[in-house]
Amino acid sequence: MTIQLHCFGESGHSYKVALALELSGLDWEPVFVDFFNGAARSPAYRESVNAMGEAPVLVDGDLRLTQSGVIQGYLSEKTGRFGGESKEEEREILRWILWDNHKFSSQLGTARFLLNFVPEDKRPAEVIRFLQGRGLAGLKVLEERLTQRDWIAGRSVTNADLTCCGYLFYPEPFGFTRADWPAIDAWLGRIEALDGWKHPYDLMPRAWPPAKS
Amino acid sequence: MTIQLHCFGESGHSYKVALALELSGLDWEPVFVDFFNGAARSPAYRESVNAMGEAPVLVDGDLRLTQSGVIQGYLSEKTGRFGGESKEEEREILRWILWDNHKFSSQLGTARFLLNFVPEDKRPAEVIRFLQGRGLAGLKVLEERLTQRDWIAGRSVTNADLTCCGYLFYPEPFGFTRADWPAIDAWLGRIEALDGWKHPYDLMPRAWPPAKS
Repeated sequence: MTIQLHCFGESGHSYKVALALELSGLDWEPVFVDFFNGAARSPAYRESVNAMGEAPVLVDGDLRLTQSGVIQGYLSEKTGRFGGESKEEEREILRWILWDNHKFSSQLGTARFLLNFVPEDKRPAEVIRFLQGRGLAGLKVLEERLTQRDWIAGRSVTNADLTCCGYLFYPEPFGFTRADWPAIDAWLGRIEALDGWKHPYDLMPRAWPPAKS
Repeated sequence: MTIQLHCFGESGHSYKVALALELSGLDWEPVFVDFFNGAARSPAYRESVNAMGEAPVLVDGDLRLTQSGVIQGYLSEKTGRFGGESKEEEREILRWILWDNHKFSSQLGTARFLLNFVPEDKRPAEVIRFLQGRGLAGLKVLEERLTQRDWIAGRSVTNADLTCCGYLFYPEPFGFTRADWPAIDAWLGRIEALDGWKHPYDLMPRAWPPAKS
C-alpha cells in the first residue's frame, strides 16, 4: 500500500521525512497541506489528521504518525536504513534529532518563515534577530562537528543528517549561506550526491504563494 | 556506582532527568553547573562535558549522555520505568518528548529565562511576547490532551509527563498560572502526589543568584 505523507514544499520538517522516504526507495506519495491558507490549524485537520496542528503526518495503512523524529525512527525500523548500527549510535542519532528540533531547525525554520512568508509590515524584527542569533549558535555547533567527521552520527548518512539538513537547501534568505560554512557546505554536497536525492521543492508540492481560498 | 547529573536548579530540562532519577529510586547525585557564570558555555565544559554547551549531562560509569530526551530513554532501559508498555506507546512518548522540546518547554523555558534571569533593561519585550504566544499555543494542546486522559501517553506516568512538566512547577512569572488551566493543574497535582516527587529547587542546587566569579 502506498505510504502517504501530509506535507508541503516549504516545510523543512516535512522534508526530513520525504527525503528519508525517497532515499529508501519506498512507495509513497505526498498529500498536500494547504498550509498558508491555514489548513494545518483547521479543526478538521486537528481532529482527523494531527491534534498538534502540524505537518508532517505519515499514514502507512492503519498507522498514523506525527513528529518528524518519530516518523524517521519508524521508517528506519521498516527499512533498516538511517537508524544507526548500534545502541550507542541510535542514542547519538536521537541526541542530534532532539538538538535539531530544539535548537537548530526550529530556530532557522521560524526565522525563515517570518522573513519570507509573513507580510513585510508584520515581520517582527527583534524576534527574527533573536532566532537568527540562536540559529547561528547552532550552525557553529554543526560546523565544528562536521569539521571532525563526514556524517553527523554514523559512518554514513543517518537520520541525524536528514534532520539537521531539513532547512539548509532552501533558497530563501534566512541567515544561512553555504559558502560561509565550509564543513556544512561539503556535507550538504555529500547529501546531494546520495542516490535518489531531491531538493524539497522537487519532492513536495509547494504551498507558497497560497492560492486564494 | 553513583550516577552523576550535571545540572542546576533553574534548568527545567535538567529537572526532567533529575525527577526521573529520583522517582526511580536510583543512586544519583547532582554536579553543580554554575550556569549564570557561563560554566556551560566555557571551552572546558564544551570539550570535556558537552560540545552542545548545555545541561543536563548524565554520567553513569563510562557512559556520558546529553539531551534530556536521550537520558530519559536510557534510564527507562535501565529501570524499566516510564518508557511505555508497547512499541506504540514508546512512539507516543517520543512524539511528546519531541513536541515538548520543539514547541513547549523550549518556548516557555526561554521566556522564563529572559523574564527572570536577564537584567531588566536588557529584556527583549517583543521576543518574550512571541515566545509566550507560542507557549500559549502549547498550553492549549496540552490542556486538551489532559482533559481527555490522566496521563499524556500511558496508563500511568511516563517520560511524556516528565518532559512536559519540566518548567511548570517553577514559581517565577513566565506566562503560566496553574489556576488558568484546570486539566494541567490536576495533572501536576497527580505528579506531585507520586512517591518520591520533589520540587526542582529541592532536587538540584540553585545557580541563581550567581555568586561573583
